[in-house]
Amino acid sequence: MTKLDISKETPKWIGTGLDNDVVLSSRVRLARNLANTPFPQKLNREEKLKVLKKIDEAVDATELKKELKLIQLDGLSPLEKQTLVERHLISPFAASGENGAVYLSEDQTEAVMVNEEDHIRIQCLSTGLNLEEMLQKANRIDDLLESRIDYAFHERNGYLTTCPTNVGTGMRASVMMHLHGHVAANKINEVISNIAKIGLVVRGVYGEGSEAGGNLFQISNQITLGQSEEEIIQKLSTVTKQLIDQERMLEKAIYRANPLGLEDRTMRSLGILKYAKKLSVEEALKYLSTLWQGINLGILQEIPLETIVRLMILVRPAMMENLRQKLDQSMDIDVLRAGIVRDQLK
Amino acid sequence: MTKLDISKETPKWIGTGLDNDVVLSSRVRLARNLANTPFPQKLNREEKLKVLKKIDEAVDATELKKELKLIQLDGLSPLEKQTLVERHLISPFAASGENGAVYLSEDQTEAVMVNEEDHIRIQCLSTGLNLEEMLQKANRIDDLLESRIDYAFHERNGYLTTCPTNVGTGMRASVMMHLHGHVAANKINEVISNIAKIGLVVRGVYGEGSEAGGNLFQISNQITLGQSEEEIIQKLSTVTKQLIDQERMLEKAIYRANPLGLEDRTMRSLGILKYAKKLSVEEALKYLSTLWQGINLGILQEIPLETIVRLMILVRPAMMENLRQKLDQSMDIDVLRAGIVRDQLK
Repeated sequence: MTKLDISKETPKWIGTGLDNDVVLSSRVRLARNLANTPFPQKLNREEKLKVLKKIDEAVDATELKKELKLIQLDGLSPLEKQTLVERHLISPFAASGENGAVYLSEDQTEAVMVNEEDHIRIQCLSTGLNLEEMLQKANRIDDLLESRIDYAFHERNGYLTTCPTNVGTGMRASVMMHLHGHVAANKINEVISNIAKIGLVVRGVYGEGSEAGGNLFQISNQITLGQSEEEIIQKLSTVTKQLIDQERMLEKAIYRANPLGLEDRTMRSLGILKYAKKLSVEEALKYLSTLWQGINLGILQEIPLETIVRLMILVRPAMMENLRQKLDQSMDIDVLRAGIVRDQLK
Repeated sequence: MTKLDISKETPKWIGTGLDNDVVLSSRVRLARNLANTPFPQKLNREEKLKVLKKIDEAVDATELKKELKLIQLDGLSPLEKQTLVERHLISPFAASGENGAVYLSEDQTEAVMVNEEDHIRIQCLSTGLNLEEMLQKANRIDDLLESRIDYAFHERNGYLTTCPTNVGTGMRASVMMHLHGHVAANKINEVISNIAKIGLVVRGVYGEGSEAGGNLFQISNQITLGQSEEEIIQKLSTVTKQLIDQERMLEKAIYRANPLGLEDRTMRSLGILKYAKKLSVEEALKYLSTLWQGINLGILQEIPLETIVRLMILVRPAMMENLRQKLDQSMDIDVLRAGIVRDQLK
C-alpha cells in the first residue's frame, strides 16, 4: 500500500488555526426558508425540485455562482452521503432525506444545504476558534441569497424554521473541542450541566460523553430567539475561551501530578498505534486522543497535531468504508484502519 | 545510557539448544552429604568451615581444581546472592543460609553448592533439552568428589540427605519450559494434575501457575527412591518431549483459529515494549512471553529468541536492582526495566 495522502481524504479546511491545541473547528449555520412555501417535509419531489430551482437561480445570479458547486445527494450512494456527514459537510438529516442537494465551495469551508430540514441551510466551517469570521461569511452568503429570494420571516419571531428551536436568528453556532483533560479529571459532566444553565449545550461528537469518542465534544447555542447573532456568538466564544483555559490547566495539572505515568501512557499509545494489526474505531480514537494530549504537553514532538486531527476524522466508520472500497474491498475494516494509522505515524 | 550487553548480565549458558523454542533450560542436581557428619543445619560456623575445607581439598586434588572457582556467599551482599538465585546458579535456600559457598565453572553450567540444605549439591545446567548430558556431567563431578570424600550412603536407601524427599539417588532433574500455548488454551492445570500422577511436578517459575510469570514452568521429578537416575531422566525426557509436541500443536492451533488476532496481539506487545516508559516485572514477562510465541510462529522474524529469553531473566526484581545499583541508583526500577527492554528491542 502506498502511503495515503490523508489531507486529500479529510476536510481541506483542517490546518493550523487559533487555539487549535484544544479547538478542532468552529461552525456557524443559518436556517432559512422560502416565503409562502411549505417546509421540505411537506413537499413532494416536484415541489422540492422547484425549491432547488429557485435557489439555483439565486446562486446563478450572484457571485456565489463562481464559488459554489452543486452536488445532488440523490446521485450519491448512502456511503458517499455518510462520508460527507463525517466530513461535517452535510448533516445526518440531509444524508437520510430525499431530493437533497448541497452547494460546496472549493475549500469546503462553505456549504449551502437545500431541502434538508429547512429549505436552506448555510454553513461556514473553519479550523480552530474562529466564530466571528464564520458568522461574517455566513451572513455574506445569506445576504446574497436574500437579494434574490423572499425568506419566510415574521416581524416579531424572526426567521421561521421547521423546528421551533431554530426560530429567530435561525443560527446555530458550534465549536468542536478536544477535552481530554476534562474527561481525565472527571470534570466533563460538571461542564455539561453548567453550560446547559446558560443556554449552551455540550455533546460528545462520537459516542455520547465517553472517552470512546476520542474526547471530542461539540458546544453549541440552544437559544435562537431573543438574542442577536452577535450576542450568541459572543457568549459562545467567551465560554469556549474559558473552556480552553480550563482544559490547558487541567492537562498540565494531570501531567504535573504524574509525569512518568502520562509519558508512559502517551508512548504506549504511540507504540500500539504504530504496531497494531487491527484497530476498532473506539480504540483508534482513544489512543489518538492520548497522542493529541501528548503533543500539547510537549511529550511527543515529532508528530504534527494536524496528522492526529486528520486521523481522528479519517478513522470513523464511513470514512474507512469509503477508503476500503477505493483501495481493497476484500480488506477487513479494522485491519485497514490499523494499516493507515501505522503508515501515517511512521 | 549506552546499550547494555545483556549476554554479560544473564547466564552465559543461554543460547541455542535442542527444542529451545519451548525449553529454556535443563538441570540436574545431585544432593550429597559427608559420612559421619551432621547435616548442615546442625553445624556451627566452625564445623561448616571444616566441611568446606574437606570439599576444597577434594576439589584441589582433582581436575576440578582447574574448572571450578570458589565463591564464599558470606562475602556477598543479599542482592548479589539474590542475583545468583535469579541466574539459577544457587538455590534460594543457599542465599538465605549462613556460611554457604559455591564452586562455579567459568561458563556457569556447573556449580557445586556447599553447606546448603545438604553438604554438597552438584548442579549442571544447560540451554534447551539436554538432561542426559547434564546427568553425565553431574556424575563426573560426583565421581571426582567421591574419589576423595566419604559420602553418607545407606545400602538399602542410597544417598542420605537432609530432606527425606531426596533420599535415594539424591537427584533432582528439571526442565524449564515456556508453555504459552498451554496457558492460552487453558490446558495448564490439566497438565499439572496429570503430571503429578506419574511422580513429576510442574511449578510456575515466577508467580504460581499464572500468566503473570511469563508462562514459564519448571517440571521436575518428585521421586528419588526406587528408581535409577537414568530411569528418572528417561521419564522426565519423555514427558518433556510430549509437552513440547503438545505446546507446538497448541500454539499453531491458536494461531490458525485467529491469525489476525494473534498477529495483532504480538505486534501490540512489541509496540508496548518498544515504547513504554515504565514496566512492571509482570507486564514485561507477559509481553515478552507473547513475543516468544510470535517468534515461534514466524510472526516476528527480526528479533532473536535468545534476546527474549535473556530479557525474561534480566527483568526480574533482583537482576534489575543489581543493574540499578551499577547504573544509576536514583532510577526507578520500572523505568530502568522499560529502558533496558526498549533498548534491546531496537
